[in-house]
Amino acid sequence: MSESRLSWLPFLEKPVPADLTEPAQVAAFELSQVPGAGFRLAPDASLPEEAWSVAQGEIRGGRTGILYGTYACLEALKLGRPLPEGLQQPLYDSRMIDCWDNMDGTVERGYAGRSLWFEGGKFSYDPDRIRRLGRLLASCGLNVLCLNNVNVHEPAQNLIADWLPKLAAFAGLLRPFGVRLMTSIDFSQPMREDGPTADPLDAGVQAWWKECADRVWAAIPDFFGFLVKADSEHRPGPFTYGRTHAEGANMLARAIAPHGGKLVWRAFVYNCMQDWRDTHTDRPCAAYDTYAPLDGQFDDNVILQVKNGPFDFQVREPVSPTFYAMPRTHLALEVQLAQEYTGQQIDIYAMPPMWDELLEDLPPQTVSAVAAVSNMGRDANLCGHPFAALNLYAFGRYAWSPAPRAAEVIRDWVGLTYPGLTADERKTLAGLLLDSRSVYEKYTAPLGLCWMVSPNNHYGPSPDGYEYQAWGTYHKANRDAVGIDRTAKGTGYAAQYPPEMQAVYEDPATCPDELLLFFHRLRYDYVMRDGRTLIQRIYDDHFAGLEQTQKMAETLYALPLPEPDRTEARERMALQLHDAREWCDIVNTFFHRLSGVPDAHGRKIWD
Amino acid sequence: MSESRLSWLPFLEKPVPADLTEPAQVAAFELSQVPGAGFRLAPDASLPEEAWSVAQGEIRGGRTGILYGTYACLEALKLGRPLPEGLQQPLYDSRMIDCWDNMDGTVERGYAGRSLWFEGGKFSYDPDRIRRLGRLLASCGLNVLCLNNVNVHEPAQNLIADWLPKLAAFAGLLRPFGVRLMTSIDFSQPMREDGPTADPLDAGVQAWWKECADRVWAAIPDFFGFLVKADSEHRPGPFTYGRTHAEGANMLARAIAPHGGKLVWRAFVYNCMQDWRDTHTDRPCAAYDTYAPLDGQFDDNVILQVKNGPFDFQVREPVSPTFYAMPRTHLALEVQLAQEYTGQQIDIYAMPPMWDELLEDLPPQTVSAVAAVSNMGRDANLCGHPFAALNLYAFGRYAWSPAPRAAEVIRDWVGLTYPGLTADERKTLAGLLLDSRSVYEKYTAPLGLCWMVSPNNHYGPSPDGYEYQAWGTYHKANRDAVGIDRTAKGTGYAAQYPPEMQAVYEDPATCPDELLLFFHRLRYDYVMRDGRTLIQRIYDDHFAGLEQTQKMAETLYALPLPEPDRTEARERMALQLHDAREWCDIVNTFFHRLSGVPDAHGRKIWD
Repeated sequence: MSESRLSWLPFLEKPVPADLTEPAQVAAFELSQVPGAGFRLAPDASLPEEAWSVAQGEIRGGRTGILYGTYACLEALKLGRPLPEGLQQPLYDSRMIDCWDNMDGTVERGYAGRSLWFEGGKFSYDPDRIRRLGRLLASCGLNVLCLNNVNVHEPAQNLIADWLPKLAAFAGLLRPFGVRLMTSIDFSQPMREDGPTADPLDAGVQAWWKECADRVWAAIPDFFGFLVKADSEHRPGPFTYGRTHAEGANMLARAIAPHGGKLVWRAFVYNCMQDWRDTHTDRPCAAYDTYAPLDGQFDDNVILQVKNGPFDFQVREPVSPTFYAMPRTHLALEVQLAQEYTGQQIDIYAMPPMWDELLEDLPPQTVSAVAAVSNMGRDANLCGHPFAALNLYAFGRYAWSPAPRAAEVIRDWVGLTYPGLTADERKTLAGLLLDSRSVYEKYTAPLGLCWMVSPNNHYGPSPDGYEYQAWGTYHKANRDAVGIDRTAKGTGYAAQYPPEMQAVYEDPATCPDELLLFFHRLRYDYVMRDGRTLIQRIYDDHFAGLEQTQKMAETLYALPLPEPDRTEARERMALQLHDAREWCDIVNTFFHRLSGVPDAHGRKIWD
Repeated sequence: MSESRLSWLPFLEKPVPADLTEPAQVAAFELSQVPGAGFRLAPDASLPEEAWSVAQGEIRGGRTGILYGTYACLEALKLGRPLPEGLQQPLYDSRMIDCWDNMDGTVERGYAGRSLWFEGGKFSYDPDRIRRLGRLLASCGLNVLCLNNVNVHEPAQNLIADWLPKLAAFAGLLRPFGVRLMTSIDFSQPMREDGPTADPLDAGVQAWWKECADRVWAAIPDFFGFLVKADSEHRPGPFTYGRTHAEGANMLARAIAPHGGKLVWRAFVYNCMQDWRDTHTDRPCAAYDTYAPLDGQFDDNVILQVKNGPFDFQVREPVSPTFYAMPRTHLALEVQLAQEYTGQQIDIYAMPPMWDELLEDLPPQTVSAVAAVSNMGRDANLCGHPFAALNLYAFGRYAWSPAPRAAEVIRDWVGLTYPGLTADERKTLAGLLLDSRSVYEKYTAPLGLCWMVSPNNHYGPSPDGYEYQAWGTYHKANRDAVGIDRTAKGTGYAAQYPPEMQAVYEDPATCPDELLLFFHRLRYDYVMRDGRTLIQRIYDDHFAGLEQTQKMAETLYALPLPEPDRTEARERMALQLHDAREWCDIVNTFFHRLSGVPDAHGRKIWD
């Protein structure tokens, strides 16, 4: 298995030479690998840095735009598609990949092998591979990489101290691709270095961070900024000192503002020590409750990064209401490419259909940046499953130009990645990928019924696995009913939405089926819009998901994918088939034991 | 916190000098620490090695008996109890402690800190502490220590190869205390050293083990033998080659027989890859099914080590039927001091009452050896909880002279360990300990309902935690009923017992309440002998267990234990209280959600 496997850019075979330092040089090198492409480069410093256009074979672009344009034109050429017309520019300035890599080489929620750049408590990487990574990121338009876990474990605190020269060297590898570095920091860092406090209103703390920022930007002048997970899941934060998250974030933002740095603050605060007996606290309410009152209080270089849903990357969640509540704040949308709850790169799960739906509820202008938790690792195929690279590629495409386009992006990725397939085969594979999210949802968590996963590892079914735990993730299924009432009569979560959305969610008769049990507690004999009872729909959806997986497997097995992708995809498909059956049977058995209702079609539900 | 804390022998303060090599020398040294004890030593080579007697202040004994006698007499003196009359001899020659220590320093299912002798892949210990350990073991009459995990992880395979000199040195530390060493071995070891097979009928394999044994016993002439976990939970074994466990064990036994070695073979085979849908396979049947047909086929120096119950150290199990099925085999009873399923040395759990019950069903002569999985670790108090040392001490007492004696042993341990308490306080503590098992059982797993624990870590409640897993541990609770029918109409497990026991277990009207749901599947409205319904008993027992824990805490808090025991016991009691409440509320909620039956007394059951 070659280390040079490059999903979606297989025609760029040569490593990028180490002596290229500017995107324009990289662009010229890439063009040189595609004889007959016939493009000329015309760098144009008068254009916005990331903008580009193409006309009469001339790619004109700003400093990094010239490279984005080159990749886009080469891709269009390979796909036989027309070149875009007019000036191309990304909607968002910051298109970020957050890597949850630890310096010991592990990757939190990583399913593609160990870290690409850390091992044994230090930097350890193949520079060629990092440059190939830069090529991939630039080719889909991504421009920021946070290289360490938001849970900052020892010794990653030292990335911005003792490790700064190594960090600068690493930044240098990605700079020719227009990719800037970010690090996750520990809010209590001043105390780790023997300071008496990390209180953001303390002058000593403020001076400490300013000095730290000066040091970091002196070493890496184009450093992007800091990412912070504060007061979340046992991370330190401003709450320790009775300060708001605005006070905490602004203190850091002011330290880095003179350097043009961005302070990315994760809006991921909830009570992870909830008593399961407590029915008043409702975790989905937490981000809105914490942050909405702070709208307008964040400095201009703060980006508040909000997860797509109010929970945590479940297969189906409503869009987070926080997005509608903070018009005076720079918000970033955070999605997760690592398939923590969506198959862990074993199950096929193409994300674009999910993002299409997201865009229906969340107009692109609501946010001003996007971030994705990485799915990359040291595996030869980068993302664990050969098809998981689609999600990385697609995220870049959406980040550049957010619009519903699942079919197009999937078709492009398939065409670029598997040029040896026939048009029919490509269409078949694209169709399989396009359907994969719906299939996965059906056998795992239809009707908005999330969190029935194995605790800790989050893979596989465990219907009651999170039911008595402290994470605020309950379904409270009993012999009569299931779900949490999040309407005005229940926890009131639905009221966090704008009135027109609230109205839809509030009433089970109008609430979309896919979110029904997210918003409502319903009896098993509740009759759905399609005339079936809730319990029958639970059975039907799980059986349908399993059947569709079996068909998906047949389709996959028949596809003449190139090796090693074919073997890898088949091996993982066998696991997916097994696991889909587990999901279907275990969830159905769980509800059958509770409800006592037999399947209307007499299918086998195990005792 | 002093490293020299010695539960039950606090009057022996001085470390045993390193230059003592014989038990008689140790005996003399120990006596010298108790001025005025007034005992004289009379070693008597004509006595059996472990036998001793005392008369007119003279302790007469065989080679190790002289030391056992010394400890017993000093203890009697300290307790103010009469000295025993006549010749004292242990019922079993082999009284073993199995340590699940890994060479990386971890202890599997260890809750008392890291390994006492391994760290970082090698031996690493304080010789003084190992000698203190030898003193403790000898003082309660234990004479074999297996120093490594039955799951033999790298590099522990090398204990009997490259590490042999270190092993010999370690054996030398315990020899003055009459404690002999044993190691767990890997059945596939010949293949690890590049042999083509580990087939027990292969002449090369047989020669390999003979050469290995020659080497081990040359280095350690009094080495006790090998302990083997084969074909169990993914360990290698004779099944790989289509051989029986008798063939596997005998091959090893013959290699070590010339040296007088014992081959201890764990009878712990079951299908740990069971499909939860499979209702024909019943894990408790496995040991009997595998081993009973082999009775009479094991060599004389094989000891077949059988766990006390047919599952795996649950708080309540019936005695394993295998004990009654193998009269022509040397059997060892295996119990677990490590409180894997019984509170993990957080919850107070004194085992002697459990062993009293065990002896009711299992006459001591049924087995010819005893073994206990260790609860020891590097914690200053050796066993994690200051009271957990009771279980180690008591195991030694039972091993020497198995008879129902819980109250006596607990009273003695309390008297020896806490001489500063008043008689009333000692009585209070002894009473608390005597009740602790019953209290724990009530709030965790009354009525024989086991395995409702958190998967993997085995601490805390998770009613459905093992329900859909591959370990063969199911209760199959649904809205109407709970339990597995193990009668003739069910899996047939009860038929593995002698007829008179089978008759008792087979009928819910005669089956002891504590085992009711182990043997029977019953509806929640089943009326128990005391007139209460099953569901009400489930509620009542859990509430009672919680209440009794609260009273236990009050009692404990009022006891003026010496420090640091007082603080340690109070800290753990706070955890126990919290966890007892979790058990009570979670299990009751689980059954309330299923059954819909309210508590007859209107107590709060959470939704």
